[in-house]
Amino acid sequence: MSKFWSDVVHKLTPYVPGEQPKLDNLVKLNTNENPYGPSPKVIAALKLEAADSLRLYPDPNSDALKAAIAEVHHLQAKQVFVGNGSDEVLAHVFQALLKHSRPLLFPDITYSFYPVYCGLYDIEYQTIPLAEDFSINIDDYDQPNGGIIFPNPNAPTGVPLSLATIEKLLKKNTQSVVVIDEAYVDFGTESAVSLINTYPNLLVTHTLSKARSLAGLRVGYALGHPDLIEALIRVKDSFNSYPIDRFASAGAIAAMQDTAYFEETCSKVIATRVALIKDLTQLGFDVLPSGANFIFAKHQVKDGAELTALLRQKNVIVRHFKSPSRVAPYLRITIGTEAQSTALIDTLTEILLAA
Amino acid sequence: MSKFWSDVVHKLTPYVPGEQPKLDNLVKLNTNENPYGPSPKVIAALKLEAADSLRLYPDPNSDALKAAIAEVHHLQAKQVFVGNGSDEVLAHVFQALLKHSRPLLFPDITYSFYPVYCGLYDIEYQTIPLAEDFSINIDDYDQPNGGIIFPNPNAPTGVPLSLATIEKLLKKNTQSVVVIDEAYVDFGTESAVSLINTYPNLLVTHTLSKARSLAGLRVGYALGHPDLIEALIRVKDSFNSYPIDRFASAGAIAAMQDTAYFEETCSKVIATRVALIKDLTQLGFDVLPSGANFIFAKHQVKDGAELTALLRQKNVIVRHFKSPSRVAPYLRITIGTEAQSTALIDTLTEILLAA
Repeated sequence: MSKFWSDVVHKLTPYVPGEQPKLDNLVKLNTNENPYGPSPKVIAALKLEAADSLRLYPDPNSDALKAAIAEVHHLQAKQVFVGNGSDEVLAHVFQALLKHSRPLLFPDITYSFYPVYCGLYDIEYQTIPLAEDFSINIDDYDQPNGGIIFPNPNAPTGVPLSLATIEKLLKKNTQSVVVIDEAYVDFGTESAVSLINTYPNLLVTHTLSKARSLAGLRVGYALGHPDLIEALIRVKDSFNSYPIDRFASAGAIAAMQDTAYFEETCSKVIATRVALIKDLTQLGFDVLPSGANFIFAKHQVKDGAELTALLRQKNVIVRHFKSPSRVAPYLRITIGTEAQSTALIDTLTEILLAA
Repeated sequence: MSKFWSDVVHKLTPYVPGEQPKLDNLVKLNTNENPYGPSPKVIAALKLEAADSLRLYPDPNSDALKAAIAEVHHLQAKQVFVGNGSDEVLAHVFQALLKHSRPLLFPDITYSFYPVYCGLYDIEYQTIPLAEDFSINIDDYDQPNGGIIFPNPNAPTGVPLSLATIEKLLKKNTQSVVVIDEAYVDFGTESAVSLINTYPNLLVTHTLSKARSLAGLRVGYALGHPDLIEALIRVKDSFNSYPIDRFASAGAIAAMQDTAYFEETCSKVIATRVALIKDLTQLGFDVLPSGANFIFAKHQVKDGAELTALLRQKNVIVRHFKSPSRVAPYLRITIGTEAQSTALIDTLTEILLAA
């Protein structure tokens, strides 16, 4: 606390990301990174950027990157906004599009950064409880609001919503922006991008940190009507002219263009998830349906916090959320390689047998 | 304009950065980039980052980078804040430390991003006119305020203020934060970093885009009392957990550590500046004293806008600011290589002879 702080600083409760341990030899299944590295074409493109040209600013508008993203999604470049990771994109979205006199709506159990952004920008919000089975019931969002945001699949549950259900919501909710945060969509969830040309209030956000294996490079983007994109550009150009450095741009372009590698690694992650859910079920876990590269699983007997701690002792890191109480029994487990799945199952078997 | 925009978006007047032309063969002296590329050690460190490890998030706290910066400045890591370019650092500074009931003070002629940040965060401000000779008169800042910020050397003038003058200001102004934006300090201006352990309300910002030749990598930092740094960390962790990607971190660490290369390139730029000022004076220009890698020069006869346009026709780009009227006669010229100086002088000679 300091008299020099602006008022807002005193009130902030910052987001706490998953641990990034500096130890080697861990089975790291806690921050939903891709177990497979980026495409070799990405590595090759990045090596070229380590050059004299780093003395020059990057393109402030990231035109080449926007064009590459637009092409993948069959949209126009003016329907694309890019940022330094989808967290930065979301920050701008909250400030530019979600601050209104009516409250923003999002699920009570969801990405825990959303209420933090509301604190940073003084946005009124209301949380809507998930259904008993942890699904989002879109009828609960049928009320006056200043915006709606949720991830699909939801975090940290991994539970997906169908495209038909998203469209039903958009048909009803036409007077405020609906943001679908599709950070994990490529692992088997239907994307709402196909609805963008129909619904001018739909904004979809994506990241290259998950399915494109580039968490270390920091690139995310938003797709929507040019009017929504313009609001984001106005805020970005009032915050930082050049958020995308030369490596981020070159690596992201190469990643967007290598569709074959992207599809192959996503398929591998999905196959590992199917096998892991089967194995965990046999060990006495209940696993929520997942359309993500992680699963949300609770043991029928063992406590979530205790299991997380026991795994950590044996060098396996998963993520555990203490609150709200409904999620406390669960572990959020990132889908790793097959070898990491085997290590996790072996370690859990050991722990459960010892109990 | 759109009903979906938050109120703030309607009111924004975004910053306009200098042109980043996509043409080759230009004498580009418009955005104060370093004419020399980054250190070979930086290039080597960057090449190593193009690897499988990009699938993993970077360190959210950038501990290694903070340690490298702290060492250069003989400070502790808890006195260092890092961001995605010093523009992002400044954005967080405005939000975290400069929003108070009393107005923020800065010069009427200065970095034109300052009023933009005030618009983004709804910060009341008051501009203080520069003296007749374009210097900052610190006595004019002796009034109730919610903070003081200016660049040293100032932009776009390049005029430096002495360390003794800065300290005089700090002795008087103890109840609000004083930010000295030292983006260009390494080209011959005295740094205020040595005052940080004495004045808990002093924050100094630096960038790696200028003297460290890394405009394309996007790294900047702030130095100050741990209480000020904590405010910035709280805002950053409410905005984006991982602003510094793996390349930015590795390249910035290597750049901070290569003192010999840094000193050599800064000396070359300073020597070129001295020679260029002499040549321009002979061509009929009045040049303000500069402690930066750019100069602010007006021709005794020819109009600033016209000269800028004529240079542009001959593939030489400098920057021109239309307002306020006091700066309109001036060109802001980045110090390039000796060859670029020669090209500029030859082109100007041609233009002036033709007139």
